[in-house]
Amino acid sequence: MDVRKFSIPEIIFGRGGLRYAGLCARRLGAEKVFLVSDPGVEKAGWVERLMSVLAGEKLNWVYFCNVVSNPRDYQVEAGADLYKLQGADVVIALGGGSPMDAAKGIALLASNGGLITDYEGANRIHRPLPPMLFIPTTAGSGSDVSQFCIITDMKRRVKMSIISRTLVPNISIIDPLILETKTENLIIASAVDALCHAIESYISKIASPFTESQSLKAIDLIVKNLKPAVENRSLENLEQLSIASTAAGMAFSNASLGMAHALAHSLGGIFDTLHGMVHPVLLPSVMRYNYRSCPEKTAVIGRILLGGRRRSEKSTAMAGIVRLEEFLHSFNVSVRLRDIVQNREMLPVLSRIAENDVCLLTNPRPVTWEDFLNVCREAW
Amino acid sequence: MDVRKFSIPEIIFGRGGLRYAGLCARRLGAEKVFLVSDPGVEKAGWVERLMSVLAGEKLNWVYFCNVVSNPRDYQVEAGADLYKLQGADVVIALGGGSPMDAAKGIALLASNGGLITDYEGANRIHRPLPPMLFIPTTAGSGSDVSQFCIITDMKRRVKMSIISRTLVPNISIIDPLILETKTENLIIASAVDALCHAIESYISKIASPFTESQSLKAIDLIVKNLKPAVENRSLENLEQLSIASTAAGMAFSNASLGMAHALAHSLGGIFDTLHGMVHPVLLPSVMRYNYRSCPEKTAVIGRILLGGRRRSEKSTAMAGIVRLEEFLHSFNVSVRLRDIVQNREMLPVLSRIAENDVCLLTNPRPVTWEDFLNVCREAW
Repeated sequence: MDVRKFSIPEIIFGRGGLRYAGLCARRLGAEKVFLVSDPGVEKAGWVERLMSVLAGEKLNWVYFCNVVSNPRDYQVEAGADLYKLQGADVVIALGGGSPMDAAKGIALLASNGGLITDYEGANRIHRPLPPMLFIPTTAGSGSDVSQFCIITDMKRRVKMSIISRTLVPNISIIDPLILETKTENLIIASAVDALCHAIESYISKIASPFTESQSLKAIDLIVKNLKPAVENRSLENLEQLSIASTAAGMAFSNASLGMAHALAHSLGGIFDTLHGMVHPVLLPSVMRYNYRSCPEKTAVIGRILLGGRRRSEKSTAMAGIVRLEEFLHSFNVSVRLRDIVQNREMLPVLSRIAENDVCLLTNPRPVTWEDFLNVCREAW
Repeated sequence: MDVRKFSIPEIIFGRGGLRYAGLCARRLGAEKVFLVSDPGVEKAGWVERLMSVLAGEKLNWVYFCNVVSNPRDYQVEAGADLYKLQGADVVIALGGGSPMDAAKGIALLASNGGLITDYEGANRIHRPLPPMLFIPTTAGSGSDVSQFCIITDMKRRVKMSIISRTLVPNISIIDPLILETKTENLIIASAVDALCHAIESYISKIASPFTESQSLKAIDLIVKNLKPAVENRSLENLEQLSIASTAAGMAFSNASLGMAHALAHSLGGIFDTLHGMVHPVLLPSVMRYNYRSCPEKTAVIGRILLGGRRRSEKSTAMAGIVRLEEFLHSFNVSVRLRDIVQNREMLPVLSRIAENDVCLLTNPRPVTWEDFLNVCREAW
């Protein structure tokens, strides 16, 4: 095997783990925390709960919640200005992928200066970031364990991928109790995003035995637990989705992603689509496109989805993709691209932007913008 | 699930990974490296190779190789004195479990002062250690990914377990090419140690989904690859053993161990036994003792060892233990305790010492010293 890297934060996982946030912040040297969240998480009462934990450790904090879904360059810049003005020393994020990615962008600009666009791509961060403690409130983005940070450049309408080992938080506290206040829509969108992380990282060109086992575990857990989690809201199922999301996060952070995420970023930049809701539309078509470059691995995924083999490797792989489609379509989500993109004439623009996404570097099969266009037409 | 922690170093895995040692040391802030190894590794040429990599980065170093198997308190103290005298700033260990554990002890005393016995047990280290970069030369101990450090207190003849999150190295470089120069005996002893790590961490009272998947992966890989690795020395099999050892290390570092390791430490302290060679003698008896507290998990292990289920869970578990015995005995190793302990009258002393080992806290079934004595008699 060629040389591969595997890097994750210290993980604290389990029901009620939130109560350790103050101690963990102290351990990272905090006196004045920069706390990033969003209005939805605040409304559910979790920000207040976290603040009482921080107060219990006699910590001060600055609260920042000007973050939207698909967080924007100017929000990150405003956050970094506030961080510096207030002399904060540790960044805590409490939220889904958007507040967590915004918090990474803030930590980056506050310590490395410049503009967020300066860091687009892989390995362009050269100075250390302030310590980061992340507490995810959804089971999907994996930002709390990953070296990825996705911020929208509003001028170009491009969701930029910023990838660096220094973007892995120091500590991730994953408390499944927080999931109990989520909407059905958010549970689905998050889990489907995690499923796409798992599948794309598994077939990635730089997958390793350390990421592959995490990817497969995540696929298995999501397929088994998403439906009952949505229907019954049982803590047991939600907890399993948290485990899956964390495992998928470990995998994609180190093996990166592929074609589906490149296109999802392109769509999110232009149409501000909720990220997780793009995958039911695209993932099956992308898997069919990639099949010829990773037939064995597509069959392994098929075996998990089907709960067993079919006659041949190929029929297992293909039946698996069909089963994935059925699984995704069994939820109340858009399943055709036309439901997300109103104007078919935008497809070439979307494809051109996707072609430049850094996630494409690890896709198992080479992709041109015309290939993207064909996949979009298939999914239309 | 109750709150569980999962913490591992940054891992760089793959053939030729050793060449990144200089860059990694630089990244940890090194100017003058404290390099710990042992005469065997030196003789195989790896110390010289590492030194040329460090020289390529214009790094200085102090070399320390006064380390024996089951490293001793006075060796660690001498190393720490030299570290301070020379003003070193980063610790690099190149070796099996003994040089790596010695390097941890040196880093600990150099930064926290006092005697190594002050830190025996769990979570007794309060100040940060110097950065540590570890390069394992065997596939077994897992010290390069773990928070364990085992040092012998020569006055009491006790192998002390020192366990702390701060003992997890910053970076672990795992290069399977290094395994090609190992003796057959060392390959077996290391792999059997990793197998015991995997089994004991899997049935540990604080196992989590993050450790369990690593434990099972390690068991599977060792059972499939140890025999061909010993017979053919193929790099492919040795590499799989490296993956297994790393996975088992991630698991036991975070889920801890149990009865077999408590007794192995007791034996190693008194008789200076090569650690890995104790497990073929003890592990099957320990698994039979623990069975009633973890029947399902013993059956899961059985399914991997047998390659399938038997009629019932119980028969799968029991047949699995028999298969494990056959597997261990198929190598040229001692299989009875009398081959290691010459004097049967020592068994009560061994049992009394094992009863106080910190590894026992996570054993699935409670253990008294009389239980140890019974297991020793069964294995006699």
